[in-house]
Amino acid sequence: MNKPKDLFKKCYDFTLADDVKAQGIYPFFHPIDETEGPVVSFDGKQLIMAGSNNYLGLTSDSRVKDASIKAIKKYGTSCSGSRYMTGTVNLHIELEEKLADYFEKERCLLFSTGYQTGQGVIPTLVQRGEYVVSDKDNHASLVAASIMAVGQSAKFVRYGHNSMEDLERVLQTIPESAGKLIVSDGVFSVSGEIVDLEQLVALAKKYHARILIDDAHAVGVIGRDGRGTPSEFDLVDDVDLIMGTFSKTFGSLGGYVVGERSVINYIKHNASSLIFSASPTPASVAAVLASLEILKNEPELMERLIRNTDYVRQGLKNAGFKLMPSRTAIVSVIIGDQMKTLVFWKKLFDAGVYVNAFIRPGVMPGHEALRTSFMATHETEHLDKVITEFCTIGKELGII
Amino acid sequence: MNKPKDLFKKCYDFTLADDVKAQGIYPFFHPIDETEGPVVSFDGKQLIMAGSNNYLGLTSDSRVKDASIKAIKKYGTSCSGSRYMTGTVNLHIELEEKLADYFEKERCLLFSTGYQTGQGVIPTLVQRGEYVVSDKDNHASLVAASIMAVGQSAKFVRYGHNSMEDLERVLQTIPESAGKLIVSDGVFSVSGEIVDLEQLVALAKKYHARILIDDAHAVGVIGRDGRGTPSEFDLVDDVDLIMGTFSKTFGSLGGYVVGERSVINYIKHNASSLIFSASPTPASVAAVLASLEILKNEPELMERLIRNTDYVRQGLKNAGFKLMPSRTAIVSVIIGDQMKTLVFWKKLFDAGVYVNAFIRPGVMPGHEALRTSFMATHETEHLDKVITEFCTIGKELGII
Repeated sequence: MNKPKDLFKKCYDFTLADDVKAQGIYPFFHPIDETEGPVVSFDGKQLIMAGSNNYLGLTSDSRVKDASIKAIKKYGTSCSGSRYMTGTVNLHIELEEKLADYFEKERCLLFSTGYQTGQGVIPTLVQRGEYVVSDKDNHASLVAASIMAVGQSAKFVRYGHNSMEDLERVLQTIPESAGKLIVSDGVFSVSGEIVDLEQLVALAKKYHARILIDDAHAVGVIGRDGRGTPSEFDLVDDVDLIMGTFSKTFGSLGGYVVGERSVINYIKHNASSLIFSASPTPASVAAVLASLEILKNEPELMERLIRNTDYVRQGLKNAGFKLMPSRTAIVSVIIGDQMKTLVFWKKLFDAGVYVNAFIRPGVMPGHEALRTSFMATHETEHLDKVITEFCTIGKELGII
Repeated sequence: MNKPKDLFKKCYDFTLADDVKAQGIYPFFHPIDETEGPVVSFDGKQLIMAGSNNYLGLTSDSRVKDASIKAIKKYGTSCSGSRYMTGTVNLHIELEEKLADYFEKERCLLFSTGYQTGQGVIPTLVQRGEYVVSDKDNHASLVAASIMAVGQSAKFVRYGHNSMEDLERVLQTIPESAGKLIVSDGVFSVSGEIVDLEQLVALAKKYHARILIDDAHAVGVIGRDGRGTPSEFDLVDDVDLIMGTFSKTFGSLGGYVVGERSVINYIKHNASSLIFSASPTPASVAAVLASLEILKNEPELMERLIRNTDYVRQGLKNAGFKLMPSRTAIVSVIIGDQMKTLVFWKKLFDAGVYVNAFIRPGVMPGHEALRTSFMATHETEHLDKVITEFCTIGKELGII
């Protein structure tokens, strides 16, 4: 007879985090005590924030903060219910209408997090015997949503990262009679690379598949006035569903999907992650409404963001760092080793530069990286400091 | 050869929502334009809110609102990143420490929604070949989390609602050598019924299973000073993991899990729904911190909540309505027919009482119900109006 198995054994055996902490190079969950956007403070020490998704710097914009405060005064701190039940206020409807209009689609539906948005779309639309066809580097939230679809007897197949040859190979293996949803990040979250959308659209047409693009890292960064990847390629009408998040350019929390009326209406009345989750707070919705107006009316913010990122990208490239391919607001420096990545991270932190260390489970072994991302509100002196410290430490560790 | 199948066909075929709208009895997604808690306004018309989860009325408490506003002024409208990466501020740590202390467990971990919290626990802990053992009436978010575990090759088995006999039968079918997590709502969300925790704990011990209790509808309602179900039964040490939400008693948005250090540490470094989702906003975290102080220091609020709910429960029972078993803040009136439920809902709405209609997918056919829930801040006149309108319409429709 076997010994009874304790479900928690895996927890007692897990020592990685404690080991890394004991070595003083633990890069996660560090609490910020003050923030002005591009400069933050940890334990009273000031650092350049070079790892935030606050692309246009709007989380600390006084107009966005004031809109949030006004919403709390009027509606309180929570809707205490899901959109479906008692948790809808006027602001939700207003934002859905304005986003549908902005993204040039018939309808929009809000979710309480970007993470839950993929779950609202993928397992709701892709049912028993149907296929999710997914880029292997898609964001973890899309993977989680696809795994949920698998748990309901849908099929989940992946293709090589941004490889349209491999996508076609995969599509050829799927029965023509099965419904298919091709899912891809617009801008990939680790690298900042842009999807090959022209080819993807052509293949979707050829194989009668529908398309979902997750534009979390694209909005406010690429496309006409920041409308993201489908707009960048002038293919808005050819992409069936576009989803995104509010915790990046929009300076808030939540997510959305836009598409044609019937499809959004179906999701609205069938998606578990919408119907059974409390709605976005009035404060968060009001922040997005204010950010959207700024995004529409101040294209110079997006220009500054791109100029800032290009400046750092060029600086690191010239210094000899190996970068992941990107022309968006993400610059990822490949280190390729877990320990070196953590040590590099700690040295940057001590030198006053805060970036993100990508080790597993965020990336596969061999792809360990330091991911930097920038804001419209970084000053040139901030960017120079980032480049300088990267170069000093990169030489010290023999990376360049 | 088969005709290519369109993934969106199910959307074009879905007419239920439009049909119900055409009949003027659509009960979902109605936007509130103003709210004072127990009284809300739709299109300028005032209604008694008898369907919110805002149990202690704290979403409109000036102390909670002020705390939220102060947090926006200091930290901005978003953390623009996950807890794991750049999205942790001091407030997150402070709340985790205070909640662990309040719930008498070693550690606490926050999530951005209650919906995502189950996903942070279940598919993270229950892996290939291990078992989720779930009450068949558990909240949809726990079902979604369990389906995600299934998608990763875990097993998902269910037992009859709150039936400890059936739970034992199911446990007997599982190999002793397999890790098992018994999952149950503390207070069931549709009915307000309390889990039979004493028996559940005894069975978990007998069959070497771990326990997760979702106390979303229990905190602030039952247990010593509102500590929820394990406290109500004096079994806090016997329940391994307790999770809950901030969108009910705590007047905010988000979720938490509390438990022993090793287990929370494992979840913290492995849960996709934590690591890859933007953190709870400073405004939402500050609201919980303020609400927690009120909950601890003003037991009279919880007493008023229970008094208010008992008053309505007794009134509806005396009138002859068939109620689901409950002694918590939920009073669900069984109607048992979809059309009658919707018509009853609409007549209540027109008469100035807002409740929740539970039809599919919220409940199984035959269990259609009008679910009411109450707040500490309802006045007796509000409650009398709810009872009176229920009775008038119930007679008109032949329900009583």
